[in-house]
Amino acid sequence: MINIPIALDAMGGDFAPESIIKGADFALSSLICSDNYKVHFSIYGQEDKVMPILLKYKKLRENSTFIHVEDVVLASDKPSFAVRHRKQSSMARAIDDVKKGIVSGAISSGNTGALMAISRFILGTLPNIDRPAITTALPSIDKDFVLLDLGANVECNADSLFQFAVMGNAFAKAVLNRKNPRVALLNVGHEEIKGTDTIREAFSLLKKFESGINFCGYVEANDVLKGDIDVVVVDGFSGNVMLKIMESLSENIFTLLKKSIDYSLATRFAGLLLKFQLKKEFYRFNPKIRNGAMLLGLNGVIVKSHGNADSIAFAHAIRVAVNAIYNNINVKIASELNSVE
Amino acid sequence: MINIPIALDAMGGDFAPESIIKGADFALSSLICSDNYKVHFSIYGQEDKVMPILLKYKKLRENSTFIHVEDVVLASDKPSFAVRHRKQSSMARAIDDVKKGIVSGAISSGNTGALMAISRFILGTLPNIDRPAITTALPSIDKDFVLLDLGANVECNADSLFQFAVMGNAFAKAVLNRKNPRVALLNVGHEEIKGTDTIREAFSLLKKFESGINFCGYVEANDVLKGDIDVVVVDGFSGNVMLKIMESLSENIFTLLKKSIDYSLATRFAGLLLKFQLKKEFYRFNPKIRNGAMLLGLNGVIVKSHGNADSIAFAHAIRVAVNAIYNNINVKIASELNSVE
Repeated sequence: MINIPIALDAMGGDFAPESIIKGADFALSSLICSDNYKVHFSIYGQEDKVMPILLKYKKLRENSTFIHVEDVVLASDKPSFAVRHRKQSSMARAIDDVKKGIVSGAISSGNTGALMAISRFILGTLPNIDRPAITTALPSIDKDFVLLDLGANVECNADSLFQFAVMGNAFAKAVLNRKNPRVALLNVGHEEIKGTDTIREAFSLLKKFESGINFCGYVEANDVLKGDIDVVVVDGFSGNVMLKIMESLSENIFTLLKKSIDYSLATRFAGLLLKFQLKKEFYRFNPKIRNGAMLLGLNGVIVKSHGNADSIAFAHAIRVAVNAIYNNINVKIASELNSVE
Repeated sequence: MINIPIALDAMGGDFAPESIIKGADFALSSLICSDNYKVHFSIYGQEDKVMPILLKYKKLRENSTFIHVEDVVLASDKPSFAVRHRKQSSMARAIDDVKKGIVSGAISSGNTGALMAISRFILGTLPNIDRPAITTALPSIDKDFVLLDLGANVECNADSLFQFAVMGNAFAKAVLNRKNPRVALLNVGHEEIKGTDTIREAFSLLKKFESGINFCGYVEANDVLKGDIDVVVVDGFSGNVMLKIMESLSENIFTLLKKSIDYSLATRFAGLLLKFQLKKEFYRFNPKIRNGAMLLGLNGVIVKSHGNADSIAFAHAIRVAVNAIYNNINVKIASELNSVE
């Protein structure tokens, strides 16, 4: 049994601190129960706001330490401002304690730009990584695939795309348990002449590194969801578009499905008959269980939870962090990168 | 009653020439029946392949002229090769006749790169347009929006994005009948500091042109599908990703919905009860009725049909071309661009 200490920024996101406290308690009782590890939380927040809620959750109280902080990162803070002026915020203090080794990772639903900037400033990047990438697993038809970058780098050079591929490969192995992950570059066509100079250059770099990575060349967006590819590498602009369009299109279709079911007595009855199967087939499309994106490439485990995450969603972000820490994701990335040279 | 003569490349796409001939006949009898116009087709193809099929469709035979050609553009042809060496192909001859004014527009399911290159070479672009954009209408929650560019320009400068906005605005007015289309630039956030230098520069150009366009600033991908925006402007790389991910995610969800319905006798019964409502709500998500993307900005109406379009899908591409021609799309774009200066 190993101990996994994790820092929680209790002040970030639309429903803080309630969603964080309730989510952490839910995670302890339902999502991260294991004989292999034991999780302890350090909770950073403003005492008058957090304590009245924390007192209600016994399981969490017994497995956490509360640390009062004076300051909070605002959603409107520019990253550079947050780095300079929010050193005593719940977010910065949580990351500080990752740096000091007091905790093994930190989770925040707060300002993404600030979280990335403060993390880079305090933790730095792993050796041979120029820029961290935001990373998550998304649903294809029958399994999950890793997508990166989701928006940390709206413009990327070929070296960055190459490094994303190496990090995504390690993530797919360590967190998704894929043996020999199939890694591809997102492009507008399969042919080698397609895409931008940057993408073609990244293609060459990955071709040369074939021994270290199961590189499958280019993949088009319509083939990504067929389930053949484990890791999809793309710049942060297109990755952000892809992530958000997947979330909102699923939401639209499910809204229209509900509308169809709500139409009449007969269709509502049909909905009852289908309920169990629909829940089973579409469980993987529930955005709540998808919450928690890793800022991959930092010298520490930092997980970004969605700003509008509720307690269930936040609990899943905790699950992501625990998985990453338990599976030593950063040690594995570092060792894969060592083999590049 | 006006006459609309349209050229059809009978040799392009996976199911040519059957899908083209059958689709044109279906369009005549079901999709483009109007008291306002009368469509006549010029069909370009290899006689031994096309005639045996054409003879089976009386309605089409009576409303078309067949033109035998010797050559065909292959799916594997590079655009530059097609421009130089496929002058006698069904594709090039169809576009030639647009240039000569014999027909008002042309439709092909063939090689996209070749279609764009040959069209630019023969027709040229509209005044003040540097680069054409591939354009289509896609489903938001309750209505359609125009998305461009879908892949003609994997890299775009600010001037091109500005021109796409003007063209998309004209398309939304002329083809989707929107009075004062809401036009937005796709970006990774709402704030003015977000995105690349190019996007911020396009933002400034569009801000300055506020009198000519109802410019709504940046839109994020998850807000695009809420139905508030009529025209979404983006570079061809991200636009291509967005189009293809929308198509394939819808397909995946509908596959899993069918799987749920096929599970048991009870769920199949539920499927029957829901069938009518599902068809109604999801009609707009049917990729067949979405077939037909305009190469907007050319000095002529050119419509690209999907390579794997069947006859129903091809008929919808014809509908797109007829709408664009009937509504004088290019005259409207040219007049909007005149007002820029």
